[in-house]
Amino acid sequence: MKPLLLITNDDGLQAAGIRVLTRVARQFGDVVVMAPERNASGLAHSFTSSRPIRIYPVSEQPECSIYMCDGTPVDCVKVCSEYFCPRKPDLVLSGINHGSNSSINVLYSGTMGAALEAAVSGLNAIGFSLLDFSPYADFEPSVPFIEKIIKTALEKGLPENTALNVNIPVPADGIIKGVKICRQSKARWLDSYEKRTDPHGRPYYWLSGRFECEDKENDTDQWALENGYVSIVPTTTDFSAYSKLDIIKQLYV
Amino acid sequence: MKPLLLITNDDGLQAAGIRVLTRVARQFGDVVVMAPERNASGLAHSFTSSRPIRIYPVSEQPECSIYMCDGTPVDCVKVCSEYFCPRKPDLVLSGINHGSNSSINVLYSGTMGAALEAAVSGLNAIGFSLLDFSPYADFEPSVPFIEKIIKTALEKGLPENTALNVNIPVPADGIIKGVKICRQSKARWLDSYEKRTDPHGRPYYWLSGRFECEDKENDTDQWALENGYVSIVPTTTDFSAYSKLDIIKQLYV
Repeated sequence: MKPLLLITNDDGLQAAGIRVLTRVARQFGDVVVMAPERNASGLAHSFTSSRPIRIYPVSEQPECSIYMCDGTPVDCVKVCSEYFCPRKPDLVLSGINHGSNSSINVLYSGTMGAALEAAVSGLNAIGFSLLDFSPYADFEPSVPFIEKIIKTALEKGLPENTALNVNIPVPADGIIKGVKICRQSKARWLDSYEKRTDPHGRPYYWLSGRFECEDKENDTDQWALENGYVSIVPTTTDFSAYSKLDIIKQLYV
Repeated sequence: MKPLLLITNDDGLQAAGIRVLTRVARQFGDVVVMAPERNASGLAHSFTSSRPIRIYPVSEQPECSIYMCDGTPVDCVKVCSEYFCPRKPDLVLSGINHGSNSSINVLYSGTMGAALEAAVSGLNAIGFSLLDFSPYADFEPSVPFIEKIIKTALEKGLPENTALNVNIPVPADGIIKGVKICRQSKARWLDSYEKRTDPHGRPYYWLSGRFECEDKENDTDQWALENGYVSIVPTTTDFSAYSKLDIIKQLYV
């Protein structure tokens, strides 16, 4: 039996990134694609339970089926693995996202929400992101790296409750130097809201922001990306702050 | 200057839990409340940037201002701390959620999304949840524990990039035995979707599920809650799977 790869994203089924990822994945086995019907960026790990979701078949073939869903990326993983996969997926792929999901962006990312949901469900999962927000981003230089990571994941698997967060740089000289296994760099968005007034005289607030990373160590994803390497951060579904347990025990009991 | 406490939730401004939390918090300082205009459960760490958000003032007094927001819990923390707080909040409180956010629920939780967003922004933050989904849940037995945790947080602070995930049991005998500092138990939802047919003959899918926890150690939040203790899990904004870095380095480079 050929491997089965489940593919989703958060940019929506129309995005270029998921088409490239599907093309690459088909070399390795059968694929089932289910993606949101519209852009679902920034939806993180949100899911839908207070209303039903709809699934729209786009193409159903033995080797490649494609569905559109009116839910979130996490919904896609949940309903697709249960209802639309002919067997348990060997690997869940999310992306290729148009834009970075490195560092603190992992918290907000629908791409990684989907990958972490797969990991919770006991499935091997990888989120891929390219550091280019353009709808016309050139994904081709990243393809050999994605192929190798998928091949390794199918052969070696992944540890329990762990998904890979893979980010791919767009170096000025076009040369990706290799791959680094990293930790998530400490960073944040310095948010600011533009307060504007609508045609009826009422205020509204629109988020903008600036990414700030003061974490300059060379074992982080930001370092890898800024130095021309693909970053792979093993990402966990266990949010416990283990290194802080003792101090909290001293202070709070 | 009195401490300033920012309060939000994911059940919406009309929920009983946030009213109780606001009443408790007012003992400790000035409060600014900003909560979603409707139920935002399950929105996790999602935020709004592709459209503007609206803020509706409900009451603006020097010691207690209340606002409603048409965004997510994370939006509430972002815009409230920037635009609607007279000074930097000393503490961000989220909840009291109607229903558990222990164990794997932390991934899906809007309550904890808000708390983690505050932690990312360098603010001390705590999410509170009561293990009772009822809109008429009795929050009174939990009040002394919440008071003590808020008092400690204002006096001692919290470690960097760490928010507390506090869950409060509803023991059959009504007696809460105390507080335990815990790790997040390993668990998952066994999802199932009910496939139904609408009046027009088209299918829709509605999520249901069953919580499964096979993690039976006595240092987890599930153990504490099942044994009548309030659970406090220090929760991190760093999703790196540190214990898996070496194995991934061996396999994937």
